[in-house]
Amino acid sequence: MQFELTKEFIDELIGFIANDQETEAFKLIKDLHPADIAEIYDEIDIEEARFLHVMLDGEKAADVLVELEEDDRERFLKVLPSQTIAEFIDKLDSDDAADVIGEFSEEKQEEVLSFIDNLEQAGDIVDLLNYDENSAGGLMAKELITVNENWSITTCLKEMRKQAENVDEVYYVYVIDDNKVLKGTLSLKKLLLTPTNTKIKNIINEDVTAVKADTPSEEVAHIMDKYDLVALPVVDALNRLIGRITIDDVVDVIREEAERDYQLVSGITQDVESTDSAWILTRARIPWLFIGLFGGILAALIMGNYELELGLFPQMAFFIPLIAAMGGNVGVQSSSIIVQALASNSMGFESIGRKLIKELGVATLNGIVLSMVIFGYNFIFSDSFALTITVSTALFTVIIFASMFGTFVPLILDKFKIDPALATGPFITTVNDIMGLFIYLMIGKMFFTFF
Amino acid sequence: MQFELTKEFIDELIGFIANDQETEAFKLIKDLHPADIAEIYDEIDIEEARFLHVMLDGEKAADVLVELEEDDRERFLKVLPSQTIAEFIDKLDSDDAADVIGEFSEEKQEEVLSFIDNLEQAGDIVDLLNYDENSAGGLMAKELITVNENWSITTCLKEMRKQAENVDEVYYVYVIDDNKVLKGTLSLKKLLLTPTNTKIKNIINEDVTAVKADTPSEEVAHIMDKYDLVALPVVDALNRLIGRITIDDVVDVIREEAERDYQLVSGITQDVESTDSAWILTRARIPWLFIGLFGGILAALIMGNYELELGLFPQMAFFIPLIAAMGGNVGVQSSSIIVQALASNSMGFESIGRKLIKELGVATLNGIVLSMVIFGYNFIFSDSFALTITVSTALFTVIIFASMFGTFVPLILDKFKIDPALATGPFITTVNDIMGLFIYLMIGKMFFTFF
Repeated sequence: MQFELTKEFIDELIGFIANDQETEAFKLIKDLHPADIAEIYDEIDIEEARFLHVMLDGEKAADVLVELEEDDRERFLKVLPSQTIAEFIDKLDSDDAADVIGEFSEEKQEEVLSFIDNLEQAGDIVDLLNYDENSAGGLMAKELITVNENWSITTCLKEMRKQAENVDEVYYVYVIDDNKVLKGTLSLKKLLLTPTNTKIKNIINEDVTAVKADTPSEEVAHIMDKYDLVALPVVDALNRLIGRITIDDVVDVIREEAERDYQLVSGITQDVESTDSAWILTRARIPWLFIGLFGGILAALIMGNYELELGLFPQMAFFIPLIAAMGGNVGVQSSSIIVQALASNSMGFESIGRKLIKELGVATLNGIVLSMVIFGYNFIFSDSFALTITVSTALFTVIIFASMFGTFVPLILDKFKIDPALATGPFITTVNDIMGLFIYLMIGKMFFTFF
Repeated sequence: MQFELTKEFIDELIGFIANDQETEAFKLIKDLHPADIAEIYDEIDIEEARFLHVMLDGEKAADVLVELEEDDRERFLKVLPSQTIAEFIDKLDSDDAADVIGEFSEEKQEEVLSFIDNLEQAGDIVDLLNYDENSAGGLMAKELITVNENWSITTCLKEMRKQAENVDEVYYVYVIDDNKVLKGTLSLKKLLLTPTNTKIKNIINEDVTAVKADTPSEEVAHIMDKYDLVALPVVDALNRLIGRITIDDVVDVIREEAERDYQLVSGITQDVESTDSAWILTRARIPWLFIGLFGGILAALIMGNYELELGLFPQMAFFIPLIAAMGGNVGVQSSSIIVQALASNSMGFESIGRKLIKELGVATLNGIVLSMVIFGYNFIFSDSFALTITVSTALFTVIIFASMFGTFVPLILDKFKIDPALATGPFITTVNDIMGLFIYLMIGKMFFTFF
């Protein structure tokens, strides 16, 4: 029942296209879901994709475009005349249409819009383009079924027949009053199972969650996830219903947000995929590597200041990688727990102070265990007691410092409304590497003069 | 319209509870959504939560339990008699009921099941307990509305009225034949808008995606996300309909999976939250720190072998942090891109060989740029040409090695059906630290003998 894309399938399809066997090629793809066809486009050349695309019927062709990755779609549409693009846009849901058109330059947007015959659709798109992409307004579609609270079920059904043509999936019917203010929802289940002369007012569910158009996408995702909603109505400042958000768009928000945080903690600065070109992948990765490089140079400078001590006690250098690595690891652990708590809104009511105290507890426990292990190791295998005491003391100190720093920085960024995920990964690692080194050399200097 | 939990609210509530003001406390929570009440429980003591819980009506009390975190629920239910637990379980959807009961010991499971009056519910739960938690069977609920393909819409509506009582949300009606084999779906929209004497057969949507009960959760999530489904039917080996999965459960799967991958790349081994106790947080973090510690000891041993060289050219030690950090950063970048591609099923048809060649291109680009920078730096600021050439050559080599290793390891783990996310974070960092050090010292020995 479910399509699985194989190498053989692609080879066969490319063969048909190469030989201009339109009918055979079309037969392979005609029954596939738009999402599957988009996946196929991803595996073939853009010219081959265009060869297939003209054979699809208008609705499906438009849906395939929506399923493409943003940059693929841009390349695909670039050579098409605005009139053709307008025909696709006309067939899309308003939210998808606004997303596609929003990627164009303003000039191109106007040109495409001027070719859209359906003036209601064009108006909806213009409305939606005004909202921030990352807000409820940017996620919502204008297509929805609304009924007046004073209608009977019979009137309601009649009206729904008219409206439902434009709406793909109906999960709820929204009930409004004469001023278009959202009063509640009506589940289709209830509608099906209630006698038809009942007034809408009497079966309405008034306990409806709605969001304002400027609610950030992350909050929309959080609300729909928390309350297990499949659709969420959007209202304006006067509580008038202006659109609805469906769960599939929110799933995308949740996934993209998670991918972004994952890439940030791994030191990747833009949204990339393994199938992107080597050039794009390089550009996404080199900024953090530069920071790492400058961190390394700074570390070399610090060590230069301790050249005398390192010359006298060369064994001290042996444990530099250990200290640096532990500082980095502890820092990333601490910061990622905070970043996740902030992202999922599960910080609880502990104050920053309480968080730091708890983190101090964790760091102390970890620090004691690990320092004792390294103390034991050096006590047995090293002939220098100064080294033994330096490494274990420094390790404990570095663990405490790195965990405080890893906890503190994201919390502070969040206070100042800066995305705390920016502070994870290579930033925390690099700072902790350097600070760890500094702490180690200072402690070493002290103990080696003592013992 | 939407509840926001504040410190003031909690303080007021705790005040009422402390003074045994049941009515006042109940008034505060009675209109809240179960998810909100669960959030409140998270902020108050377990005894205070129990004080509130007994006042909730049965259905809501049961729903609140489902919304609690697994470990909180366990503590909450521990002191309750099996009979009371059975009353809650009886009111839940079968999938939630199975999840809750699945957390008990087998003995306790049997005891609770024996108290469930509704034998159909008890039977459904026992069925569901047989499935792996991380499979379609583990996600599905048994409650669904099925109609026979030979019925008319009128019969269908009559039957639905009977069945719908047990089903919270109806998105689709499933159509089966006389052998219970899934034939298709019927959208409520279509049902509402078609004349009632039509046969189901004629308006059925046969193009339905279904999964087998043993399909892994990740694949279920991938399918529902890709095809924008809000509900997915589950069938047995004979294509007989046995349950359905709803999108809200899949959103949880997607979120939990992302959180897990994030924690793994950050070096955290179990699912923890910032609100967990210091003890749990320590246990989740110390395993990777031990690996880092042993890596550090290994690094110290390797450097011990080069003690002579390091004594002669102490400046070489200065760039050890740089080399180690860059190896770690590059390795994590490479592995995270592969892990994400594997997780989102977007690997394309490039062979492992092609992936490695592209990664080689990225690494070469990054390597050339960064080595040139460090070459320039040392050329200007260092008086040793041997050092200048050693650091830049080693950096280039380490970047190439780390990116190959970071790409290769997750791909190999995936080939052997081991979760590739295990290879991210501290593992890749530690191995690359050590290998980087080794490469650096070898190259250094070579060049310092030459120049």
